[in-house]
Amino acid sequence: MGRVIFIGAGPGAADLITVRGAQRLAQADVVLFDALTDPALRVYAPKARWIDVGKRGFADARRAGAPAYDSTKQDAINALIVEHALEADVVVRLKGGDPSVFGRLEEELDAVRAAGLSCEVVPGVSAAHAAAADTQRPLTRRGSGRSVAFSTAMSREGAFVPTRSVDTEVFYMGGKQLAALGRRLRAAGWPADTPVSVVSRAGWPDRLHSDHTIETLAQATVLHAGRPTVITVGAGAAALDAAASSASAAAAAVAIGRLGATAMSKP
Amino acid sequence: MGRVIFIGAGPGAADLITVRGAQRLAQADVVLFDALTDPALRVYAPKARWIDVGKRGFADARRAGAPAYDSTKQDAINALIVEHALEADVVVRLKGGDPSVFGRLEEELDAVRAAGLSCEVVPGVSAAHAAAADTQRPLTRRGSGRSVAFSTAMSREGAFVPTRSVDTEVFYMGGKQLAALGRRLRAAGWPADTPVSVVSRAGWPDRLHSDHTIETLAQATVLHAGRPTVITVGAGAAALDAAASSASAAAAAVAIGRLGATAMSKP
Repeated sequence: MGRVIFIGAGPGAADLITVRGAQRLAQADVVLFDALTDPALRVYAPKARWIDVGKRGFADARRAGAPAYDSTKQDAINALIVEHALEADVVVRLKGGDPSVFGRLEEELDAVRAAGLSCEVVPGVSAAHAAAADTQRPLTRRGSGRSVAFSTAMSREGAFVPTRSVDTEVFYMGGKQLAALGRRLRAAGWPADTPVSVVSRAGWPDRLHSDHTIETLAQATVLHAGRPTVITVGAGAAALDAAASSASAAAAAVAIGRLGATAMSKP
Repeated sequence: MGRVIFIGAGPGAADLITVRGAQRLAQADVVLFDALTDPALRVYAPKARWIDVGKRGFADARRAGAPAYDSTKQDAINALIVEHALEADVVVRLKGGDPSVFGRLEEELDAVRAAGLSCEVVPGVSAAHAAAADTQRPLTRRGSGRSVAFSTAMSREGAFVPTRSVDTEVFYMGGKQLAALGRRLRAAGWPADTPVSVVSRAGWPDRLHSDHTIETLAQATVLHAGRPTVITVGAGAAALDAAASSASAAAAAVAIGRLGATAMSKP
C-alpha cells in the first residue's frame, strides 16, 4: 500500500515550489496535478506517470452551468488518489499554491485516511504572498496593517458578505466578480477610495498588476480576464512610496487609475 | 551599486525555502540573516559573507525591557543593508517565513528604495501554512472554514483586540501571552470550547503540537516556551477526524486535553 504526499507547488512558475516539495516529487510513481501547476515541474519527476485532474470536463468547476463547488468531480479525484495509492509506492497530489488554503485538501485527506493510507503535506507559497512579493507591497504594515485575511470572493452558496474587521483583505478566485465585490466591500463599510491591488498570474513571468480603488475595481475585469487573480484590499494594497503620506497616496491612486494597468517587468 | 534580494526562507528547516530562493541565494555576495533561519541554508551560498542581524543585542526585540518593536534596531538593519549594497553586487536579506507577513519588509524596502537600489522580493512559505501542513489541518474548510486571518497576538501598542469575523484566526508571535489571548478571544465572542491548535517550530523536525480549547489555552505555555509558536483558532484548528461530527469534535478535544501534548513524529 502506497503513501500519498500532498505538495504545494506554489502559485506560479516551477521555481516557486519548495526544495522539499521538489525532492518529494522526485520520489513519485504517480503525480495527480492541477491545471494551475507549471508543466515545467515535470523535470523533477520525469519517470512518474503524470495525470491531469484539473482539465475541463473532469474537475473544472468553471464550465457553464456547473456549481462553484462540484462534489461529484471532487469525489472522482478523491477516488483516483486512493486507487493509485493502492497500486503505487508514492503518489503525489500536486496542487497550485498552498494545499491548506482553498485547496480542497480536507476532502482529499479524509479520503486518503479513510482508506488507511499514510500521508504527508508539504506546504507551498500561497498566491497572496506571491502577489505581495511581485508588487513589493507587504501584506502587513507597521501601525496601519497589523492583520490580513484571506477569503474567496464568492462563497459556495454565492452569498459572500465581507466584513471590515482586518486591515487588509485578500480575495482568491474573484476575477469574474469584481464589480459585485466592489459593491459588497462598500456595503461592509470600506471607503470608496480604499486602495485595491489586482494581480493575475502572480509568481509567473507574465504576471499583470493594476491599481484601483474599491470604486473603480470593475475596471480591472478586462485586463485580468481568464487569468487566476488575487485581489488585495486595504493597507496591504498601497504602494510603499504612496503610503508615505495619505495625501500623496490618494493622488497616486488617481494617477495610476488614469494610466490604466501596467505590465510588470520581469525582475 | 548592488542589488538587494529579499528572500523568504520559509518557517522551518532549510528545505522549506523555494527553489527560486535557493538559486538567488547562490548569487549572494553578502547575506544578512535572521535568527529564525536555518544555518543549513549556508550550503546555498558558501562563499558569501553571512551576517547575523537577528542576534541578541542587535535586533532582538524580545530581551527584557525592550519594546515589541524597536525602531532603533530596525534602523540599524536598514542601514546595514544599504551599506553593503553600495559595495557588493548582490546582497540577500534572508528572512524566516514569508517577508511580506510580519517581516518588517516595509521599512527595509523603503530604505533600499530611498537609496536608489534595485530590489526583488522572493516569497516564502509562512509559518501558518507550515503549521497547517504539519498537523494536516487545512486552514480553510468546506462550508465551515471559508476565511482565515493572520495577526500578531500582541500589537505594537499591546492593545490587541481580536474580533470574531472570520472562521479561522491564526496568531503569530503569541507564545508568551496565551492566557491573555484566551481571555481576549472569549471577550470577542468566541465560545470557550472553540478548538485551538498550537504548533511551535512548524516545519522543523522537532516541531511540537498540542490541542486545546480557548478555555484551556494557557496550558500550552510551558510546552512551547521559548519556541516560535503559531496559534490557530476556530474551524482550521479542528482535527479532520474530529471535524466529521461536532459531537465527536467536542469529545476529542477533551480527550486530547487530558492526554496533554504529543510530540509529532517526523514524516
